[in-house]
Amino acid sequence: MSSAVLQAKPGAAAREARALQKGQQTKAAIVDAALVLATRVGLEGLSVGSVADKAGMSKSGVFSHFGSREELQISVVRAYHARFRAEVFEPALAEPRGLPRLRALFGRWMTRMSVEIASGCLFVGGAVEFDDRPGPVRDALVASVKDWLGALQRAVVQARDEGHLASGIAPAQVAFEIHGLILALHYEARFLQAPGSVARAEAGFENILKLYGAARASAIPARAIRKAAPFPKETPHA
Amino acid sequence: MSSAVLQAKPGAAAREARALQKGQQTKAAIVDAALVLATRVGLEGLSVGSVADKAGMSKSGVFSHFGSREELQISVVRAYHARFRAEVFEPALAEPRGLPRLRALFGRWMTRMSVEIASGCLFVGGAVEFDDRPGPVRDALVASVKDWLGALQRAVVQARDEGHLASGIAPAQVAFEIHGLILALHYEARFLQAPGSVARAEAGFENILKLYGAARASAIPARAIRKAAPFPKETPHA
Repeated sequence: MSSAVLQAKPGAAAREARALQKGQQTKAAIVDAALVLATRVGLEGLSVGSVADKAGMSKSGVFSHFGSREELQISVVRAYHARFRAEVFEPALAEPRGLPRLRALFGRWMTRMSVEIASGCLFVGGAVEFDDRPGPVRDALVASVKDWLGALQRAVVQARDEGHLASGIAPAQVAFEIHGLILALHYEARFLQAPGSVARAEAGFENILKLYGAARASAIPARAIRKAAPFPKETPHA
Repeated sequence: MSSAVLQAKPGAAAREARALQKGQQTKAAIVDAALVLATRVGLEGLSVGSVADKAGMSKSGVFSHFGSREELQISVVRAYHARFRAEVFEPALAEPRGLPRLRALFGRWMTRMSVEIASGCLFVGGAVEFDDRPGPVRDALVASVKDWLGALQRAVVQARDEGHLASGIAPAQVAFEIHGLILALHYEARFLQAPGSVARAEAGFENILKLYGAARASAIPARAIRKAAPFPKETPHA
């Protein structure tokens, strides 16, 4: 649109801004609907038609915001990532560096997992769907997971640097072992519906801290993990 | 067939036995083809048509051996389970009770996983496919995994009873933590293609043994894990 047109209609810029905002809201609503669907049917189970149904729109309406199914899948991965950051990562940053922050990360990850035992985790399901399918959706998933595991590893490094964990630890090893507990929790609670999985993941985390020298830092407040919401009862999901 | 008919044709029983044997061989060949397919496309990706193609048979030929796709899927789970038992569980039983057998189980599981980093593990993939789909296929998968995790837990109990691990350990907790290492290895090596994942899983296993008191039993030969084939280089699969 030329500036002459903008000048000819004084309210045009405001109308355009409103239209842009409305477009963004519609786009966000489509991604929300797609995210709900994806946790149930997987990223590969998404189709423009099913997302349009869920969002109460036409297929062409969805296509006007997302040029392809792949673009929609990538947007879902990013939205999931943003939610994960907001619920797990950012609140943990409010805790003091070192063991309190590491505990907060794990505690909030467990809380997040409580939802995902019922609904399925996109990072776990997506890994199985895309582990042999190279392309931009897989790349977006891998980038998200690496970002998250990197944050976990940084928290371990800080705990070591603060003297809350032993100086000789290998942070990548500690992060790997913590990641294993989360994956075992997801597998045993969601798929096997094994009672006691949550307590085992929590005990496993304490074992890791003990192994890596956190006993020396037992005076550090464990506020973070206690602030997390209690874990819901592990009943089979509908 | 009445006994009169059998008596009327002296070679009939032998012919019938041969036909039965041939039928079983055909059935086994179909399951083999389906198993190869399933590790690539998942259990849910199996169709009677694709299995028939892979086995070089007609769809009706496959249907004559498996009345439904579901029956075929369950047979694949059982065949996978039998292979897992033969490659991991049974050779480990040849090792002395206690830590040697536990090490053998883990070592052979790692060796098995070396194949599955390239091809995908049916127990990991199946868990994601069927965690929200009740029915006989899910039941067969859960039964297989529980059988396997039960064997791992028994090996932990024996290691405790032999005095190779501390008397106060909770075997279910130990098994959960070991399961986590295997899941982290599958996730990080296969999906993230993270170098060093194998070494981390091995180090994690040694950490668990140390945590649970195996240091006291350091004189126990670690033959088993060394007998396992070397882990292949972790390159991205084709």
